Amino acid sequence: MKAKTVKPTFRNAHSHVFLCKYGLLLSLNILITMMRSPSGSFFGHLLVIPMDGSHWMDLKAVAEEIGRRGHQVTVVIPEVSVRMGPGKHYKTLTYPVPYDKERIDSLLSMHMDVLRQSTQFAPISYFTSVPLQSFLFLSLQHFDAVLTDPMVPTGSLIARKLGLPTVNLLRVIPCGLDTKSAACPAPPSYVPRFFTKFTDKMNFWQRVINTLVSLLEPLLCRLFYWHFDHIAYQFLGEEVGVAEVLSESAIWLLRTDSILDFPRPLMPNMVFVGGISCNIRNPLPQDLESWVSGEHGFVVFTLGTAVSVLPEEITAVLLEAFRQIPQKVIWRYTGPVPDDVPENVKMMEWVPQNELLAHHGVRAFITHAGSHGLYEGLCHAVPMVMMPLGGDQPDNAQRMASRGVGVVLDITTITVETLLQGLNDVINNSSYKESVEKLSAFHKDRPFDPLELSVYWTEFVMRHKGATHLRAAAHDLNWVQYHCLDVLALLATVVLLVVMVTMRCMRLCLRKLSRKRKQD
Amino acid sequence: MKAKTVKPTFRNAHSHVFLCKYGLLLSLNILITMMRSPSGSFFGHLLVIPMDGSHWMDLKAVAEEIGRRGHQVTVVIPEVSVRMGPGKHYKTLTYPVPYDKERIDSLLSMHMDVLRQSTQFAPISYFTSVPLQSFLFLSLQHFDAVLTDPMVPTGSLIARKLGLPTVNLLRVIPCGLDTKSAACPAPPSYVPRFFTKFTDKMNFWQRVINTLVSLLEPLLCRLFYWHFDHIAYQFLGEEVGVAEVLSESAIWLLRTDSILDFPRPLMPNMVFVGGISCNIRNPLPQDLESWVSGEHGFVVFTLGTAVSVLPEEITAVLLEAFRQIPQKVIWRYTGPVPDDVPENVKMMEWVPQNELLAHHGVRAFITHAGSHGLYEGLCHAVPMVMMPLGGDQPDNAQRMASRGVGVVLDITTITVETLLQGLNDVINNSSYKESVEKLSAFHKDRPFDPLELSVYWTEFVMRHKGATHLRAAAHDLNWVQYHCLDVLALLATVVLLVVMVTMRCMRLCLRKLSRKRKQD
Repeated sequence: MKAKTVKPTFRNAHSHVFLCKYGLLLSLNILITMMRSPSGSFFGHLLVIPMDGSHWMDLKAVAEEIGRRGHQVTVVIPEVSVRMGPGKHYKTLTYPVPYDKERIDSLLSMHMDVLRQSTQFAPISYFTSVPLQSFLFLSLQHFDAVLTDPMVPTGSLIARKLGLPTVNLLRVIPCGLDTKSAACPAPPSYVPRFFTKFTDKMNFWQRVINTLVSLLEPLLCRLFYWHFDHIAYQFLGEEVGVAEVLSESAIWLLRTDSILDFPRPLMPNMVFVGGISCNIRNPLPQDLESWVSGEHGFVVFTLGTAVSVLPEEITAVLLEAFRQIPQKVIWRYTGPVPDDVPENVKMMEWVPQNELLAHHGVRAFITHAGSHGLYEGLCHAVPMVMMPLGGDQPDNAQRMASRGVGVVLDITTITVETLLQGLNDVINNSSYKESVEKLSAFHKDRPFDPLELSVYWTEFVMRHKGATHLRAAAHDLNWVQYHCLDVLALLATVVLLVVMVTMRCMRLCLRKLSRKRKQD
Repeated sequence: MKAKTVKPTFRNAHSHVFLCKYGLLLSLNILITMMRSPSGSFFGHLLVIPMDGSHWMDLKAVAEEIGRRGHQVTVVIPEVSVRMGPGKHYKTLTYPVPYDKERIDSLLSMHMDVLRQSTQFAPISYFTSVPLQSFLFLSLQHFDAVLTDPMVPTGSLIARKLGLPTVNLLRVIPCGLDTKSAACPAPPSYVPRFFTKFTDKMNFWQRVINTLVSLLEPLLCRLFYWHFDHIAYQFLGEEVGVAEVLSESAIWLLRTDSILDFPRPLMPNMVFVGGISCNIRNPLPQDLESWVSGEHGFVVFTLGTAVSVLPEEITAVLLEAFRQIPQKVIWRYTGPVPDDVPENVKMMEWVPQNELLAHHGVRAFITHAGSHGLYEGLCHAVPMVMMPLGGDQPDNAQRMASRGVGVVLDITTITVETLLQGLNDVINNSSYKESVEKLSAFHKDRPFDPLELSVYWTEFVMRHKGATHLRAAAHDLNWVQYHCLDVLALLATVVLLVVMVTMRCMRLCLRKLSRKRKQD
């Protein structure tokens, strides 16, 4: 791979420094990071290497909050992206990418055949084409830690190259690489694997499938991260793959909890921070506030950033169903608005989703079951109609449905009747509202706000240059040692030997006895 | 077992209510617990069934704090105990026990031969003789939850009988019953078992022993809780043992963390609260303050509540060593003070241990390595000379020593030289101070104060009548299902069949081929 010439640019007003001034910048940075406030608190420099799409949302919230607390925060983003951009409390640094905005847009305008596949992981193939050498200018600055989403492990590789401790903020790596790299046990008997849509209560055949999937996971990860393993080897000049690089992570901030997923083992450096965006909201704009008021309430409908335009036949079905319900519907829709939109439907390019879900008039939430949307629905106790598209969404949806907080519909085969039935169920059958209220109470009753907790552990890693006291010794064992297979082999051999010797002795004794009898 | 007539007495000034008034009390309690403050916060009624000795300390702190926050707290204690007694913010209720104060005192005045054994678990045999039926009057009151130390599972059995959710506050159950009952994985490859004194880094033979101990743990638990399994069956009238009763626990508050123990898997309902007493302290009395000042500083020496009088020969060795050091020594000692006490030694029946350890003049801490003492030493970064006596102490001491924060000595074979060497090491070799300062920084850098966290989760269980959302589905699986042994058997059979069929086919083909050749 050949390094590309890069002109990183700071987009933020705070800094007009370019590559040529990195020497001065370096000294300044070291001075600043060594400075301590009078109260003894530590101000450091955080490098954030985020992922695009909905993955960006929580990373941005954490970066902003850490910057707001007085640390320096540098966010490295590609020149072309779906959502990533500047913020109030961090500076951005862009790098060139070998794809353009149109290519990304074309990916997001979904058609029927694309909908049937998972498109969540498409950006990964783009990332593998970004030359990591172009990030090496970062070594001229002093950082205390890297905050990244390791599903695309660019940030993790750069952190290793720069010798920096890493904080991961992620929903999940579906092939189980997160669990494996954190050396966390995940018994397939009650920890359902992604793509199976199972819950934590499995029958025998489901356990068979789940176990098979868990046995295949290492292979899946190999395939999934084949490109990155290759890049890691080239970029780092070491015989390491992505799994090993990730196993060095200091803290795993997991955008989940025992509500969205099921109770399962954790390691001490894994922290649940599901629901970060719940408390981040503004007042609802006045025009929306007056539009949504009405005796029947309203329904919020969004399919996330991964989808902008829906196929016409689906849009027609959805509009026809909405026409037949008394509730108003606010629909996030970035495509061209059709002519026959019913009066009770408002299509908007962007909706203040969290603010709308917090409104007392909301009756239901139609969602693609992305984790952010689900947490916002959970946070405000709104029953849901879930139409998962890909990635973790089908599993998310089944997990939520198993708790009775909503129904799951297949958007590719949806009809007016099934949608009406689903909406009618969640709006008028009180069991959905009751279940979601109970889960919401559990979800929100936690000792620490997830944003605070994310910031706390990120600052911890910056302060202590890692979290070595939370690193399990399991990381130093190979597979045979970890499972004590060598010990079990020894014990089995000893037992076998004892049994054999006993048998041999008994046989000898019996033979002697029978000889003696014959002699008698 | 026959129920005994009991006269429970409230020791607290708030209440002079006796058994005959329980009817009224019941209604009042229900009314009170249903009351909500104007801010919507919940006031409940907590039943605390504690354990004696050092186990009582943190339970008392939590009970006091919960009472202080406006909840009703009732602590049930035996008429005779080592430390348990009334508090400011809870009421106590006493029950008769078939042993007296002298029997307990005689246990605590240790002699050489007793010192060689573990005496930590002696109180357990007493508890098994308390008729649990005498607690049934508690069913006349309304409680929201039970807080208990399940090492003596009286509280857990009563909670099950009364149908109440349980919060456990404990250091550890050394036969692994806590881990097993919480359905928490504990791979023997890097989770050292108690009584082995291993760390998380084991060589092959240590892993062999650790695995053997882990295989024997269920048997150990059976023996250890044989009495209680019997009592459980009689008292509850169900076919359940202690393990099953404990597996119903809502929350496990563990008086440990990744500093005292090693990083290992946890379940979502297991919470680290090690170091509760660290921040609970008063100003040092003026006379002590002036006595400890001096250019060479001082040493704190305590052996916990489990020991009051030491054998004379050991006392003589200790005094002789102390005579030879420039530091002053404050020694908690409840026996008769010998005549030849050196000037730099002060023997006191009770010492404000946490306050002394927090003093800037402290140079070293001689401790029996009970978890409370270790946490207070860690909290104030004091290097330690550890002389473990029994229970979890030998393992605690090794774990701390492996981190370089102190040295371990055997009190039964101690000499003036070894003690002087140990003291000299921890006081004058700066590596001990540096290590304990580093560990102390890690230990104290946590998002939540352990007392706050204990109170939070106890209140959580009171508010929600449990913590069902944190209960892993592993509890519903039997041993074969949990380990997927049935699934593995099926998969192995399938693989075997495929191999056999393939072999048979190949053999047939080969036979046909060879026949054909012969015919040719």
